[in-house]
Amino acid sequence: MVQFSISGSYTDLYELTMGEVYFLEGRKDDPANFDYFFRKIPNGGGYVLFSGLHDLLEILETLHFTDADIAFLQKLHFRPAYIDFLRGFRFRGSVYSVQEGEVVFPNSPLLRVEGTLFETQLVETLLLNLLNFESLIATKASRMRLVAGNRLLSDFGLRRAHGPGGVLAARAAIVGGFDSTSNVYAAGLYQAEAAGTMAHSFVESYDSEIEAFRAFARSRPDNCIFLVDTYNTLQSGLPNAIIVAKEMEREGHRAAGIRLDSGDLAWLSKNARALLDREGLSYMKIVASNQLDEYVIRSLLEQGAPIDIFGVGTRLVTGQPDAALDGVYKLSMAAGKPRLKLSESIQKLTLPGIKQVMRAMKENGEFFGADAILLTGEEEPGMIYDPFEADKSLAIGEYIREPLLQKVMGEGKRLAPAPALHEMAAYASGRLALLPQEYKRFENPHQYKTGISKKLMELRNDLRDQHKTGKK
Amino acid sequence: MVQFSISGSYTDLYELTMGEVYFLEGRKDDPANFDYFFRKIPNGGGYVLFSGLHDLLEILETLHFTDADIAFLQKLHFRPAYIDFLRGFRFRGSVYSVQEGEVVFPNSPLLRVEGTLFETQLVETLLLNLLNFESLIATKASRMRLVAGNRLLSDFGLRRAHGPGGVLAARAAIVGGFDSTSNVYAAGLYQAEAAGTMAHSFVESYDSEIEAFRAFARSRPDNCIFLVDTYNTLQSGLPNAIIVAKEMEREGHRAAGIRLDSGDLAWLSKNARALLDREGLSYMKIVASNQLDEYVIRSLLEQGAPIDIFGVGTRLVTGQPDAALDGVYKLSMAAGKPRLKLSESIQKLTLPGIKQVMRAMKENGEFFGADAILLTGEEEPGMIYDPFEADKSLAIGEYIREPLLQKVMGEGKRLAPAPALHEMAAYASGRLALLPQEYKRFENPHQYKTGISKKLMELRNDLRDQHKTGKK
Repeated sequence: MVQFSISGSYTDLYELTMGEVYFLEGRKDDPANFDYFFRKIPNGGGYVLFSGLHDLLEILETLHFTDADIAFLQKLHFRPAYIDFLRGFRFRGSVYSVQEGEVVFPNSPLLRVEGTLFETQLVETLLLNLLNFESLIATKASRMRLVAGNRLLSDFGLRRAHGPGGVLAARAAIVGGFDSTSNVYAAGLYQAEAAGTMAHSFVESYDSEIEAFRAFARSRPDNCIFLVDTYNTLQSGLPNAIIVAKEMEREGHRAAGIRLDSGDLAWLSKNARALLDREGLSYMKIVASNQLDEYVIRSLLEQGAPIDIFGVGTRLVTGQPDAALDGVYKLSMAAGKPRLKLSESIQKLTLPGIKQVMRAMKENGEFFGADAILLTGEEEPGMIYDPFEADKSLAIGEYIREPLLQKVMGEGKRLAPAPALHEMAAYASGRLALLPQEYKRFENPHQYKTGISKKLMELRNDLRDQHKTGKK
Repeated sequence: MVQFSISGSYTDLYELTMGEVYFLEGRKDDPANFDYFFRKIPNGGGYVLFSGLHDLLEILETLHFTDADIAFLQKLHFRPAYIDFLRGFRFRGSVYSVQEGEVVFPNSPLLRVEGTLFETQLVETLLLNLLNFESLIATKASRMRLVAGNRLLSDFGLRRAHGPGGVLAARAAIVGGFDSTSNVYAAGLYQAEAAGTMAHSFVESYDSEIEAFRAFARSRPDNCIFLVDTYNTLQSGLPNAIIVAKEMEREGHRAAGIRLDSGDLAWLSKNARALLDREGLSYMKIVASNQLDEYVIRSLLEQGAPIDIFGVGTRLVTGQPDAALDGVYKLSMAAGKPRLKLSESIQKLTLPGIKQVMRAMKENGEFFGADAILLTGEEEPGMIYDPFEADKSLAIGEYIREPLLQKVMGEGKRLAPAPALHEMAAYASGRLALLPQEYKRFENPHQYKTGISKKLMELRNDLRDQHKTGKK
C-alpha cells in the first residue's frame, strides 16, 4: 500500500537549509512570527472561504521526522549535529487563526504562527500546501452551494483530482456546502456522507440495459439510481428505468432516481421529470452530472431544470479556472523586532508586527464590508487606511467590531478538539449568510475593504524608510 | 503523522456498489477488459506525455482493503458476505500499457486492464486519479523543457499544489524533463534531486541583508544561492551578494549564484549578469522564479535573459490553465463479448474489443504522424479511418509500424521492476525527439492522426446498430 506521509520532509528543501543555518548560528530558538494571507481572490469572486485549519493543526500536533526522512536527509549532507536535532524535533509553537469556514478577504492575516525561528519557518510549505488548496476548494464549493439552493450537491471528482489531493478536496467541498462525496476514503477519514450511483460500464456489462437495471434493483432495492444515458436517454434508459421502478413497487420498494450524464441536461431533465410524474413515479429524483460548475448549475436552474442532485467533478476538485489560491506566509517578527519585505511593487509589501483583524458588523449582524488590521494591544481604530493607497481611508468607528484571530494551538497542542465537518460547514454557511449579496455575485462582485490602522501604517512605513535609506 | 493511504477505499462509492451487485449476482469473476484513453489534449497542445504508470502498478501489486476500510464499509451497510470477500481481495489482473514517458494522442487506448469484472471495475477511480494527473503534469513539464533547452528546471510547487498531489507532481515533472524538485518528501520517495535556495524570511530575520548572506555563506559555503530581491535587487541584494561572494573567494569557496523572484526578470537578469561578470563572478549562476510557465520562460529566453535555472511552481504543479486531463476508463469486453457505450455525441462512442495501437514511423525513425488502432490478432491494416468521420481515411501501409501496448503486469504482478525516474525521463525525451516540430509548437499545433482499422470500425458499427435497432 502506497502512503503519502505528511512528515517532517513534506517541505521545500530550503526550509531545512535555512534551518541548518539557524541551527549552526545559534538562532534556531529565536522567537518568530509568521502570517498567512492571500492577495487575490480566485475565479473573480468576492470572498474566500478559509479551510484546512483543522487538518493543519492535526498534522502540527504530531509532526516529526520519520526514519525514512532522516535517512534521506543524511544523503543530502546535512551536518550530523543538525540531523540529531531534527530527529528529536517536535512542533511546540502557537497558532492564532480565524475559524475554519470563515469568510475572508485579501491581505488580511488569517493565521499567525508564533514559536521558534526554526519551527515557524519549517512549517511554511506544509501550511501553504494545505490552506491554499482547501480554501480554494471550499470557496469553489460555496459558490455552487449559493446557486444550488437546497438541492443536493455531491463531489464526484476523485478521478480528475490531483492524486491524493482529491481526499482534501472532498473534505473542503463539504466545508463549503456540499452534502456528500463519492470518495469512500475521504468519507471514512472525515466522517462524511458517501454517495454514488452506477457507471455506464455496469449497464454495458449486461447484454441489455433492462437486465442491468433489474440486477441492480435486486441487490440494492433501497438505494437504486439508474444511469439512463448509456444507449439513449429518452428512448431506452428512461423507459427501462420506469419498467424496473414499477416492478420494484410491486415488491414494496421505491427506486431512488435516475442519473443523466450527457446531452442537454435542462431539456432531458424536464422530459424525464414529466415522464416519471406521468407514470406515478414523482418520488424518483433526478441526478445530473457532466462537466458541471457554478455557472452551469445556475444556468440549469434558471431554465427550470427539475434536477434534485448535482454530481460535480473536475471543476470542483481542481478549482478551475483558477486552480490555486495564492496564499503566502510572511515573517512579521523575529528576535523581538518587527520585520518587513520590500518589493518592486507596493502590493507585495508585507505587514510587520503582531496583528489582530477586527471585522466591522452592522447592527443587524451583517458584515459592514470592512476588516481592520491593527497591532495587537492597540486601541481599536476609528479610521482605517488602504494598505497600498494611504489617501484612501474609511471611518469604521460606529460599527461593532469582532476580533477574528483566536488562539487555537499553544505549545504545539490544540486548545480544543476539532469541530465535526458538519459544524464547520454550518459555521461557513452562517458566516456567508452575513455577507451582503453584492459580495457574493459572480460578475464583478463588490470589493470588500481591508484597511490598516494608523499605527500599523506608521510602523510599516518607518521600517520601509529605514531599509530604503540604507539605515540597515 | 497524517497519511493518505491509497488502499481499497481510495475509490468512488459506485465502484463498490456495482461490485456488490456483481458479487451477489455471481458475476464478479466474469472476464472483463477496460481501456484507458483521453479525448482532449490539455492547454491547446499537440501531444500528451503519458505518466503515472509505475505508481499505478506499484499500488495495484499490494492493493487491499485495510481494517479501517473494512470498518467504514460495514457502516455503509454492505452485506457481510461481500465484506468478507473484500477482506480477502487482491488485484490479480493483467495490465497492457504504453511505456511511461510515451508521447500519446487522443482516443488511442493507452492502457488496458484485463481481469475479473470486479477487479477491473474497482480500480477505475484509482487508475484515473493517478494517470490523469501525472500525465497532465508530465506534459506541462515537457513543454517547459522544450523551450528551456539545456537550462536547469526545478519544481518549486509544493506550496501551491493540491495537497499531497504535489508529491506526484514532483515525480511527473521529472518524467517530463525537469531536473530537480524542492519537495524533499518526493525527492526521497522517488530518488530525485532535491534543490532549493533561501527565502525572503531568511534575509528579513537578520538585521541586515549582508549579515544574512554572510551567515548563509558560513554554513553552506559550497551551495550558496543568494536571494537578492528582499529589499532592492540592484541597489542592495546584488551588491551585498557580490561582497559576500568575494569574501567567500578569499576563503577558497565559490558562491553558487543568485535568485531573482520579482520584478522584470529579463531586465534584472541582464543587469545582474553584467555586474557579476564585471566583478569576476561569471561562475555565479542566475536562478529565476515567480509565476513562470512555458510562455514566460520562452519569452525570457527570446529576450536573451541570461537565466541558468528556472524554479517553477503554481503553473507546473496545477497544470493551469487546464488543470485536468480528461482521461476515461471504458469497458470494451465483458463475459467474452465486445461492449460499447453509445452517446448523444459520436465523439463519445467507445471502441469495443481488445485492441493494439501501432505507431507509424518514417524510415528515419521519426513519427509519421498517425497511430492505428486495430483488434489484436488482426493483420496490420494498410488503411486507417477517422473514428468519427468514416469518409476520412489514410494509407499507412508504407510505414514501419511499432506496437505501443505491451504487457506490464500479469496476475497482479509486474513483469519487470520499475525503471528509475531518470530512465523514464530519458525515454520521454527520446520519444519527443521523434515527434516532428509542428506537433510540439504551442500555437495551433499540427494534429496527429489516430485511425481505426476497418475491422474495428465494422465491429463498432455492428454493435451500435444492434443497440439502435433495439436488437438488444
